[in-house]
Amino acid sequence: MITYKTPVDEYNFLFHDFLKISQQNIKSFSELNKDFTTEIFEMAGKLASDVLLPLNRIGDIEGCRLENDTVITPKGFTNAFKKLREDGWTSVDCEKEFGGQGLPTSISILLGEIFSSCNISLTIYQALTHGAYGAILKYGTETQKNLYLPKLVSCEWTGTMNLTEPHCGTDLSLIRTKAEKITNDIFSISGQKIFISAGEHDLTENIIHLVLAKIPGGPKGVKGLSLFIVPKFIPNSDGSLKERNNVKVGSLEKKMGIHANATCVMNYDSATGYLLGEEHKGLQAMFTMMNEARLGVGIQSIALSEIAYQNSVIYAKERIQGKSFSNEGQLSVESKPIINHPDVRRNLLDQKSFIEGGRALSIWVASLLDKSNHLMDDRAYGLASLLTPVIKGYLSDIGFEMTVVSQQIFGGHGYIEEWGMSQFVRDSRIAMIYEGTNGIQAIDLVGRKLNSDGGKNIIYLNELVQNFLTEHSELEELNNDFLVPLKESKKNVEEVLNFFMSNGLKNPNSALAGASDFLHLLGNFCIGFMWAKMAAILFKENEIINENTFQEGKILTGQYYMKNILPKTNYLAKKILSGDKIIMSLNSEQF
Amino acid sequence: MITYKTPVDEYNFLFHDFLKISQQNIKSFSELNKDFTTEIFEMAGKLASDVLLPLNRIGDIEGCRLENDTVITPKGFTNAFKKLREDGWTSVDCEKEFGGQGLPTSISILLGEIFSSCNISLTIYQALTHGAYGAILKYGTETQKNLYLPKLVSCEWTGTMNLTEPHCGTDLSLIRTKAEKITNDIFSISGQKIFISAGEHDLTENIIHLVLAKIPGGPKGVKGLSLFIVPKFIPNSDGSLKERNNVKVGSLEKKMGIHANATCVMNYDSATGYLLGEEHKGLQAMFTMMNEARLGVGIQSIALSEIAYQNSVIYAKERIQGKSFSNEGQLSVESKPIINHPDVRRNLLDQKSFIEGGRALSIWVASLLDKSNHLMDDRAYGLASLLTPVIKGYLSDIGFEMTVVSQQIFGGHGYIEEWGMSQFVRDSRIAMIYEGTNGIQAIDLVGRKLNSDGGKNIIYLNELVQNFLTEHSELEELNNDFLVPLKESKKNVEEVLNFFMSNGLKNPNSALAGASDFLHLLGNFCIGFMWAKMAAILFKENEIINENTFQEGKILTGQYYMKNILPKTNYLAKKILSGDKIIMSLNSEQF
Repeated sequence: MITYKTPVDEYNFLFHDFLKISQQNIKSFSELNKDFTTEIFEMAGKLASDVLLPLNRIGDIEGCRLENDTVITPKGFTNAFKKLREDGWTSVDCEKEFGGQGLPTSISILLGEIFSSCNISLTIYQALTHGAYGAILKYGTETQKNLYLPKLVSCEWTGTMNLTEPHCGTDLSLIRTKAEKITNDIFSISGQKIFISAGEHDLTENIIHLVLAKIPGGPKGVKGLSLFIVPKFIPNSDGSLKERNNVKVGSLEKKMGIHANATCVMNYDSATGYLLGEEHKGLQAMFTMMNEARLGVGIQSIALSEIAYQNSVIYAKERIQGKSFSNEGQLSVESKPIINHPDVRRNLLDQKSFIEGGRALSIWVASLLDKSNHLMDDRAYGLASLLTPVIKGYLSDIGFEMTVVSQQIFGGHGYIEEWGMSQFVRDSRIAMIYEGTNGIQAIDLVGRKLNSDGGKNIIYLNELVQNFLTEHSELEELNNDFLVPLKESKKNVEEVLNFFMSNGLKNPNSALAGASDFLHLLGNFCIGFMWAKMAAILFKENEIINENTFQEGKILTGQYYMKNILPKTNYLAKKILSGDKIIMSLNSEQF
Repeated sequence: MITYKTPVDEYNFLFHDFLKISQQNIKSFSELNKDFTTEIFEMAGKLASDVLLPLNRIGDIEGCRLENDTVITPKGFTNAFKKLREDGWTSVDCEKEFGGQGLPTSISILLGEIFSSCNISLTIYQALTHGAYGAILKYGTETQKNLYLPKLVSCEWTGTMNLTEPHCGTDLSLIRTKAEKITNDIFSISGQKIFISAGEHDLTENIIHLVLAKIPGGPKGVKGLSLFIVPKFIPNSDGSLKERNNVKVGSLEKKMGIHANATCVMNYDSATGYLLGEEHKGLQAMFTMMNEARLGVGIQSIALSEIAYQNSVIYAKERIQGKSFSNEGQLSVESKPIINHPDVRRNLLDQKSFIEGGRALSIWVASLLDKSNHLMDDRAYGLASLLTPVIKGYLSDIGFEMTVVSQQIFGGHGYIEEWGMSQFVRDSRIAMIYEGTNGIQAIDLVGRKLNSDGGKNIIYLNELVQNFLTEHSELEELNNDFLVPLKESKKNVEEVLNFFMSNGLKNPNSALAGASDFLHLLGNFCIGFMWAKMAAILFKENEIINENTFQEGKILTGQYYMKNILPKTNYLAKKILSGDKIIMSLNSEQF
């Protein structure tokens, strides 16, 4: 039976010791003390394990079904969603003006992790709503904000993102959905969208679709895209509902995982749409949503790795199999729990060091967004935008791998659906694909984010690392185990950046050929940086750590990461430096 | 729609140019010319794509079901299996004396690949039968051989392996199934076995279970295990069937993949069993079966990677998405098929270079077994036994990864079951688990195979590589691209072997902590060796290659492997050399 325990100590460490949230000069954050966050994390954890988790496997088995143009979610989902929103968990970091609680993004990120661990399919309905909230908050008119935001904050209505069409996912220049102008801001939307998560369901009374479409006569390609609010039911200005709009679910996809989240083909047949933001500037508005969603996908990957890890640890402690050696080289007489075997321990440390490091990176980037939102810190925003594809791509690639590692610890039982580990693997697989495949994240990183504003964001990151190295050069405990490997890895980053600079301009393929490897290199490097930062805190301020066991375990885990995982940057740099020559030499028949 | 095309050119290259099968001094192989093998591969391929492939997705959707103690396989499976055996495909490399065709193992390996590509679930029924054939051939009495082998060769009866019990998989010392002696070689078997592939089904009239059990009073642990033949129906000496034996399927597992292969809980309730081999020497006999099965698992992984790769290539050539750069750095005006994108090409080359190299390794090891069987070549046998865990573990780990890469190329469509790519991922996942998890393969490699007979097998491998390097040192085309990287990687192997030698004896955990990484290191190295051998042939004997396109594509693929994949051995060596200290330092609560 799958169980879940919120890693409250870990969260508090990140929140209070690592981020030092209450000292961040953000006014409303100064009251966030440890008692408060502990209570929040524990309450969320209780709801997640008591209400969401028991539905997770039911959702996997039952899936969603389509009946008379309506999607029926699995048994128990409507009640659970109601509970989630009535208890206020959907509004945590939203603006108070629209019914939110104004808490930091870095808190809502961790709450998202808790809920995703226990039931990712259910959590996605909320996550997309939050994305729609963000887009309307930024680009909506006052009327739109007043009408939609309170309902989205409370999740009385949910939201969706409609980009993909049968012939185009990545390449939005190919979009065919049309928006014919009726009045100034009312349009008639027609076309077909596919892979629309939460496109139709029975959790709420209304669904707000944000739809990318082309207004005839506009510029070609992505510059001709506009964004529209297309509600399932047209609302009156007081939020009550009028007639049903001409948008309908066409069919439901049968997927490898996240069965309880409805993935819909959506047909728009002269549906009423309201322009959101300016004409032909839809892509920019949609990207507000996308960037938030991409950060969320990284956290989903951590979430599934976390619950899979927790259960593999329990299994490893219980499953007795094979004799093991003591540290003195003595073979045990009886068979032992498999957690005694070095190979199993290595598997567990691969998971643990990734999860804790990846979570630190996510919450750090979330705190950059907090700084950007509350303090108008542009450098923080720039750095967050540089690291968004890294968080999405790297955490989902490795997160998936880690669920596979957890499953592997269960041996044959891992392959049997009843045990629940297969579901984590199948569910986490989507994270590498949706919100832009990881290949696209890599191209976004290398082709766009690295160079934007003269490369100032990667320069800023390097500065932060360099400053950290300089500031801590006297801390002996840190040097060999953390600073030296970080410096080594930093060289790999620089080597690749030089390669990109001297080759990428005249031959973009030479950089693009290494894009995915660079995304991994930078992700690995950033997590190494996080581990070094965490270790510095643990060594310097050990008075703040109450439990020695926790501190010691964390330092060992960090040492493991720096010695075993971080050095992979060297291999990745070598691959990237091999360039595109061979890759581009094969003709199409040679594949 | 998933399609399949037998890679006949590739097979013929491996068989005639790489192995030079007809010059191997094995009498019956001298007639195996290219016309003959081409015909065999094409005929098998036709059966596989026409009959097996159309059932693959049906099998995934329908799965097996249990009705009145009988397992019903999906629609069409009984007919397809009948066709497979009636056309003689189950008997290819079996002894002529028992109805086989006496062809090389290296041919049957490739046929196994073809059938597994198109329908792995169906092929497993045959593969296990072949394993039972091998065990009875080696350990059976004349009477047993004459009774069982012809039926197993023709697959009129199928076979199973019964090792795992609910509380023990890896650790067979914990087996509880009992065998009470009735007469000298007749025993009464009682106990429960789980995860028994093909334990019950409706494909054949009889099923021959090979069951590990303990004879009361025997030695403790694995030395007290004996192996028994337990037929579903007791046969008369002429092969006709008597009464049903007391062995019954208890339930069917619902699994992540290979849905059409019945994974059974088997209950033995005073079932009649016939001793196979000597009392208390059952493990050795079972390992005959296991070793063959492990080689087979490696090939299954290649098979699923191959068909997944083929379909991802087709998709990459058809799917138009995104503008791409020419080799001169010009951006295309229109969107292009994604095979033009460097990142997609890298993904395809990861797959292609692994599949072709891994296949070469498998067929090379199969040819070592042929040499051992026909020429009593002990060194060949020893090397094959060293490389068996590598083939099982490395090819299934990377094979799984490669199906994930193929799936990724399909973007969102890869996650939709209808497209068929998810099934390859789910099906190939089992290969990392069954026939001994890959962690166990690693321990077998490092804890047993490396050291057996004074390490002579790894020494022999090193000699072969060294001889190859020396012999080809004058071949300029080979040097930079193949010999140099191979030498670099060889250093990593030696470095690790030295580390194991100087630390492993006094502290076994220091070697065991690096076992999985060493399995990957050696697998990667061996495939690098195969690529260098193939390249040497392609450069030296290019008159034998008819199609330049084929030759050039292959050399480029090899160059890609040597430059991009092989250097990972350096990273793996670094990990292994970090030892077990951190890994063993965490106490159980710190996970």
